[in-house]
Amino acid sequence: MSNRRRGFAHERDLVLKFWSHGFAVMRAPASGSKAKRVLYPDIVAIYKGRVIAVEVKTVREPRSIYIDGDQYEKLVEFSKRAGGEAYIAVKIIGSGEWIFIPIDKLVKTESGKYKLNIELLNTGLKLEGLVSLVKGVRKLTEFTSRDITPP
Amino acid sequence: MSNRRRGFAHERDLVLKFWSHGFAVMRAPASGSKAKRVLYPDIVAIYKGRVIAVEVKTVREPRSIYIDGDQYEKLVEFSKRAGGEAYIAVKIIGSGEWIFIPIDKLVKTESGKYKLNIELLNTGLKLEGLVSLVKGVRKLTEFTSRDITPP
Repeated sequence: MSNRRRGFAHERDLVLKFWSHGFAVMRAPASGSKAKRVLYPDIVAIYKGRVIAVEVKTVREPRSIYIDGDQYEKLVEFSKRAGGEAYIAVKIIGSGEWIFIPIDKLVKTESGKYKLNIELLNTGLKLEGLVSLVKGVRKLTEFTSRDITPP
Repeated sequence: MSNRRRGFAHERDLVLKFWSHGFAVMRAPASGSKAKRVLYPDIVAIYKGRVIAVEVKTVREPRSIYIDGDQYEKLVEFSKRAGGEAYIAVKIIGSGEWIFIPIDKLVKTESGKYKLNIELLNTGLKLEGLVSLVKGVRKLTEFTSRDITPP
Protein backbone atom coordinates (compact mmCIF):
# COMPACT_ATOMS: atom_id res chain seq x y z
CA MET A 1 0.00 0.00 0.00
CA SER A 2 1.24 3.51 -0.78
CA ASN A 3 1.64 6.04 2.02
CA ARG A 4 -1.33 7.90 0.62
CA ARG A 5 -3.59 4.84 0.65
CA ARG A 6 -2.37 3.89 4.11
CA GLY A 7 -3.20 7.41 5.28
CA PHE A 8 -6.75 7.01 3.93
CA ALA A 9 -7.09 3.68 5.72
CA HIS A 10 -6.25 5.29 9.07
CA GLU A 11 -8.67 8.15 8.39
CA ARG A 12 -11.43 5.67 7.54
CA ASP A 13 -10.71 3.82 10.78
CA LEU A 14 -11.30 7.02 12.76
CA VAL A 15 -14.39 7.93 10.69
CA LEU A 16 -15.96 4.54 11.46
CA LYS A 17 -15.18 4.90 15.17
CA PHE A 18 -16.85 8.33 15.36
CA TRP A 19 -19.84 6.95 13.41
CA SER A 20 -20.18 4.00 15.78
CA HIS A 21 -20.36 6.49 18.68
CA GLY A 22 -23.36 8.20 17.06
CA PHE A 23 -21.59 11.14 15.41
CA ALA A 24 -22.29 12.54 11.97
CA VAL A 25 -18.85 12.41 10.39
CA MET A 26 -17.26 13.29 7.07
CA ARG A 27 -13.79 12.76 5.63
CA ALA A 28 -12.36 15.47 3.40
CA PRO A 29 -12.03 14.76 -0.32
CA ALA A 30 -8.51 14.03 -1.57
CA SER A 31 -6.75 17.35 -1.91
CA GLY A 32 -6.06 18.27 -5.50
CA SER A 33 -3.02 20.07 -6.79
CA LYS A 34 -4.89 23.31 -7.34
CA ALA A 35 -4.55 26.22 -5.00
CA LYS A 36 -7.35 25.80 -2.50
CA ARG A 37 -9.67 28.61 -1.62
CA VAL A 38 -11.63 26.53 0.89
CA LEU A 39 -9.91 25.04 3.91
CA TYR A 40 -10.81 21.54 5.08
CA PRO A 41 -9.66 19.57 8.11
CA ASP A 42 -9.04 15.85 7.48
CA ILE A 43 -12.23 14.90 9.30
CA VAL A 44 -15.19 16.73 10.74
CA ALA A 45 -17.29 14.96 13.38
CA ILE A 46 -20.53 16.45 14.69
CA TYR A 47 -22.80 15.48 17.55
CA LYS A 48 -25.97 17.51 18.06
CA GLY A 49 -24.40 20.80 17.03
CA ARG A 50 -21.03 20.22 18.69
CA VAL A 51 -18.36 20.23 16.01
CA ILE A 52 -14.93 18.59 16.18
CA ALA A 53 -12.42 19.41 13.42
CA VAL A 54 -9.59 16.91 13.22
CA GLU A 55 -6.18 16.74 11.58
CA VAL A 56 -4.90 13.15 11.48
CA LYS A 57 -1.30 12.12 12.18
CA THR A 58 0.09 8.61 12.49
CA VAL A 59 3.34 7.61 14.15
CA ARG A 60 4.92 4.22 14.68
CA GLU A 61 5.75 5.01 18.29
CA PRO A 62 5.25 7.99 20.61
CA ARG A 63 7.33 11.00 19.50
CA SER A 64 7.02 14.76 19.10
CA ILE A 65 5.12 15.75 15.96
CA TYR A 66 5.38 18.88 13.85
CA ILE A 67 2.37 20.38 12.08
CA ASP A 68 2.82 22.71 9.10
CA GLY A 69 1.75 26.28 9.71
CA ASP A 70 -0.89 26.17 6.96
CA GLN A 71 -2.40 22.93 8.31
CA TYR A 72 -2.63 24.54 11.72
CA GLU A 73 -4.19 27.70 10.34
CA LYS A 74 -6.83 25.80 8.34
CA LEU A 75 -7.91 23.92 11.47
CA VAL A 76 -8.21 27.18 13.39
CA GLU A 77 -10.17 28.90 10.61
CA PHE A 78 -12.54 25.97 10.01
CA SER A 79 -13.32 25.45 13.69
CA LYS A 80 -13.80 29.17 14.27
CA ARG A 81 -16.37 29.35 11.48
CA ALA A 82 -18.04 26.14 12.66
CA GLY A 83 -18.12 27.25 16.28
CA GLY A 84 -16.32 24.03 17.17
CA GLU A 85 -13.10 22.69 18.59
CA ALA A 86 -9.97 21.54 16.81
CA TYR A 87 -7.80 18.58 17.64
CA ILE A 88 -4.80 16.74 16.31
CA ALA A 89 -5.71 13.04 16.31
CA VAL A 90 -2.59 10.94 16.68
CA LYS A 91 -2.69 7.23 15.92
CA ILE A 92 0.14 5.29 17.46
CA ILE A 93 0.25 2.43 15.01
CA GLY A 94 1.60 -0.20 17.38
CA SER A 95 -1.13 0.29 19.96
CA GLY A 96 -3.90 1.11 17.48
CA GLU A 97 -4.96 3.80 19.94
CA TRP A 98 -6.08 7.29 18.95
CA ILE A 99 -5.05 10.23 21.15
CA PHE A 100 -6.62 13.68 20.80
CA ILE A 101 -4.66 16.86 21.52
CA PRO A 102 -6.45 20.25 21.51
CA ILE A 103 -4.54 22.44 19.07
CA ASP A 104 -4.02 25.23 21.58
CA LYS A 105 -1.60 22.88 23.38
CA LEU A 106 0.81 23.05 20.42
CA VAL A 107 3.71 25.48 20.49
CA LYS A 108 4.85 27.54 17.51
CA THR A 109 8.46 26.99 16.53
CA GLU A 110 10.87 29.51 15.04
CA SER A 111 10.43 27.92 11.60
CA GLY A 112 6.68 28.59 11.69
CA LYS A 113 5.65 25.00 12.36
CA TYR A 114 3.68 23.92 15.41
CA LYS A 115 5.15 21.35 17.78
CA LEU A 116 3.11 18.70 19.51
CA ASN A 117 5.43 17.69 22.32
CA ILE A 118 5.74 13.98 23.09
CA GLU A 119 4.63 14.73 26.67
CA LEU A 120 1.19 15.70 25.33
CA LEU A 121 0.66 12.14 24.08
CA ASN A 122 0.69 10.98 27.70
CA THR A 123 -1.99 13.43 28.80
CA GLY A 124 -4.17 13.61 25.65
CA LEU A 125 -7.71 12.28 25.53
CA LYS A 126 -8.49 8.87 24.14
CA LEU A 127 -11.46 8.57 21.81
CA GLU A 128 -13.84 7.51 24.57
CA GLY A 129 -12.81 10.50 26.67
CA LEU A 130 -13.40 12.89 23.79
CA VAL A 131 -16.78 11.31 23.07
CA SER A 132 -17.85 11.64 26.72
CA LEU A 133 -16.70 15.25 26.73
CA VAL A 134 -18.64 16.12 23.57
CA LYS A 135 -21.76 14.31 24.72
CA GLY A 136 -21.57 16.23 27.98
CA VAL A 137 -21.22 13.14 30.13
CA ARG A 138 -18.07 14.53 31.73
CA LYS A 139 -16.41 17.92 31.86
CA LEU A 140 -12.79 18.40 30.80
CA THR A 141 -11.84 19.34 34.36
CA GLU A 142 -13.06 15.94 35.57
CA PHE A 143 -10.38 14.14 33.60
CA THR A 144 -7.61 13.17 35.98
CA SER A 145 -4.53 11.00 35.98
CA ARG A 146 -6.84 7.98 35.77
CA ASP A 147 -7.31 8.91 32.14
CA ILE A 148 -3.64 9.14 31.33
CA THR A 149 -2.70 6.92 28.46
CA PRO A 150 -0.12 4.32 29.50
CA PRO A 151 3.13 4.75 27.57
CA MET B 1 -16.43 17.33 -19.31
CA SER B 2 -18.01 14.13 -18.03
CA ASN B 3 -21.26 14.26 -16.05
CA ARG B 4 -19.30 13.32 -12.97
CA ARG B 5 -16.80 16.16 -13.40
CA ARG B 6 -19.61 18.58 -14.17
CA GLY B 7 -21.35 17.47 -10.96
CA PHE B 8 -18.20 18.21 -8.97
CA ALA B 9 -17.96 21.66 -10.58
CA HIS B 10 -21.48 22.53 -9.41
CA GLU B 11 -20.73 21.24 -5.91
CA ARG B 12 -17.55 23.32 -5.78
CA ASP B 13 -19.56 26.37 -6.83
CA LEU B 14 -21.89 25.89 -3.87
CA VAL B 15 -19.00 25.15 -1.48
CA LEU B 16 -17.31 28.41 -2.46
CA LYS B 17 -20.55 30.35 -1.99
CA PHE B 18 -21.08 28.97 1.53
CA TRP B 19 -17.42 29.71 2.34
CA SER B 20 -17.76 33.30 1.11
CA HIS B 21 -20.69 33.72 3.52
CA GLY B 22 -18.47 32.74 6.45
CA PHE B 23 -19.49 29.08 6.79
CA ALA B 24 -17.16 26.18 7.51
CA VAL B 25 -17.96 23.86 4.63
CA MET B 26 -16.85 20.46 3.37
CA ARG B 27 -17.61 18.48 0.24
CA ALA B 28 -17.91 14.70 0.53
CA PRO B 29 -15.16 12.55 -0.97
CA ALA B 30 -16.00 10.79 -4.23
CA SER B 31 -18.08 7.76 -3.38
CA GLY B 32 -16.29 4.51 -4.07
CA SER B 33 -17.88 1.31 -5.26
CA LYS B 34 -17.64 -0.36 -1.86
CA ALA B 35 -20.66 -0.76 0.34
CA LYS B 36 -20.64 2.28 2.58
CA ARG B 37 -21.04 1.99 6.32
CA VAL B 38 -20.87 5.73 6.85
CA LEU B 39 -23.44 8.02 5.26
CA TYR B 40 -22.40 11.37 3.82
CA PRO B 41 -24.45 14.18 2.34
CA ASP B 42 -22.90 15.87 -0.72
CA ILE B 43 -21.99 18.95 1.30
CA VAL B 44 -22.03 19.91 4.96
CA ALA B 45 -22.01 23.62 5.84
CA ILE B 46 -21.68 24.81 9.43
CA TYR B 47 -22.02 28.23 11.01
CA LYS B 48 -21.35 28.53 14.73
CA GLY B 49 -22.82 25.15 15.59
CA ARG B 50 -25.72 25.28 13.14
CA VAL B 51 -25.35 22.44 10.67
CA ILE B 52 -26.81 22.25 7.15
CA ALA B 53 -26.60 18.90 5.32
CA VAL B 54 -27.11 19.24 1.59
CA GLU B 55 -27.82 16.92 -1.32
CA VAL B 56 -27.08 18.62 -4.65
CA LYS B 57 -29.23 18.33 -7.76
CA THR B 58 -28.87 20.21 -11.02
CA VAL B 59 -31.55 20.68 -13.67
CA ARG B 60 -31.50 22.56 -16.96
CA GLU B 61 -34.88 24.13 -16.26
CA PRO B 62 -37.43 23.97 -13.43
CA ARG B 63 -39.04 20.51 -13.16
CA SER B 64 -40.03 17.99 -10.52
CA ILE B 65 -37.07 16.02 -9.16
CA TYR B 66 -36.95 12.50 -7.71
CA ILE B 67 -34.53 11.56 -4.92
CA ASP B 68 -33.58 7.93 -4.30
CA GLY B 69 -34.80 6.48 -1.04
CA ASP B 70 -31.27 5.78 0.20
CA GLN B 71 -30.09 9.31 -0.59
CA TYR B 72 -33.04 10.65 1.37
CA GLU B 73 -32.39 8.36 4.31
CA LYS B 74 -28.70 9.26 4.50
CA LEU B 75 -29.59 12.95 4.67
CA VAL B 76 -32.06 12.28 7.47
CA GLU B 77 -29.62 10.13 9.44
CA PHE B 78 -26.68 12.52 9.05
CA SER B 79 -28.66 15.60 10.03
CA LYS B 80 -30.27 13.82 12.99
CA ARG B 81 -26.84 12.87 14.36
CA ALA B 82 -25.46 16.35 13.65
CA GLY B 83 -28.43 18.08 15.22
CA GLY B 84 -28.86 19.99 11.98
CA GLU B 85 -31.20 20.53 9.09
CA ALA B 86 -31.26 18.83 5.71
CA TYR B 87 -31.95 20.42 2.35
CA ILE B 88 -32.01 19.53 -1.31
CA ALA B 89 -30.02 22.24 -3.10
CA VAL B 90 -31.26 22.58 -6.67
CA LYS B 91 -29.19 24.46 -9.22
CA ILE B 92 -31.16 25.61 -12.21
CA ILE B 93 -28.34 25.75 -14.71
CA GLY B 94 -29.79 28.45 -16.94
CA SER B 95 -30.27 30.94 -14.11
CA GLY B 96 -27.20 29.87 -12.12
CA GLU B 97 -29.41 30.20 -9.03
CA TRP B 98 -29.43 27.75 -6.11
CA ILE B 99 -32.75 26.96 -4.44
CA PHE B 100 -32.97 25.16 -1.09
CA ILE B 101 -35.86 22.85 -0.23
CA PRO B 102 -36.15 21.39 3.32
CA ILE B 103 -36.37 17.63 2.88
CA ASP B 104 -39.57 17.32 4.89
CA LYS B 105 -41.32 19.06 1.97
CA LEU B 106 -40.67 16.05 -0.26
CA VAL B 107 -43.34 13.40 -0.73
CA LYS B 108 -42.67 9.67 -0.80
CA THR B 109 -43.82 7.94 -3.98
CA GLU B 110 -45.14 4.41 -4.35
CA SER B 111 -41.80 3.30 -5.79
CA GLY B 112 -39.97 4.42 -2.63
CA LYS B 113 -38.43 7.53 -4.13
CA TYR B 114 -39.06 11.03 -2.80
CA LYS B 115 -40.59 13.64 -5.08
CA LEU B 116 -39.61 17.28 -5.00
CA ASN B 117 -42.56 18.88 -6.74
CA ILE B 118 -41.83 21.62 -9.27
CA GLU B 119 -44.05 23.95 -7.22
CA LEU B 120 -41.49 23.81 -4.40
CA LEU B 121 -38.88 25.45 -6.64
CA ASN B 122 -41.05 28.57 -6.66
CA THR B 123 -41.25 28.78 -2.88
CA GLY B 124 -37.82 27.48 -1.86
CA LEU B 125 -35.17 29.61 -0.23
CA LYS B 126 -32.39 31.17 -2.24
CA LEU B 127 -28.89 30.97 -0.79
CA GLU B 128 -29.08 34.42 0.77
CA GLY B 129 -32.36 33.50 2.46
CA LEU B 130 -30.89 30.31 3.87
CA VAL B 131 -27.80 32.16 5.09
CA SER B 132 -29.93 34.80 6.85
CA LEU B 133 -32.02 32.07 8.43
CA VAL B 134 -28.98 30.19 9.73
CA LYS B 135 -27.29 33.32 11.00
CA GLY B 136 -30.49 34.19 12.84
CA VAL B 137 -31.01 37.46 10.99
CA ARG B 138 -34.53 36.41 10.02
CA LYS B 139 -36.91 33.69 11.10
CA LEU B 140 -38.43 31.26 8.60
CA THR B 141 -41.89 32.65 9.32
CA GLU B 142 -40.72 36.08 8.19
CA PHE B 143 -40.15 34.86 4.65
CA THR B 144 -43.06 35.97 2.52
CA SER B 145 -44.00 36.14 -1.12
CA ARG B 146 -41.36 38.85 -1.54
CA ASP B 147 -38.83 36.04 -1.40
CA ILE B 148 -40.47 33.91 -4.02
CA THR B 149 -38.10 33.02 -6.80
CA PRO B 150 -39.36 34.26 -10.15
CA PRO B 151 -39.99 31.40 -12.57
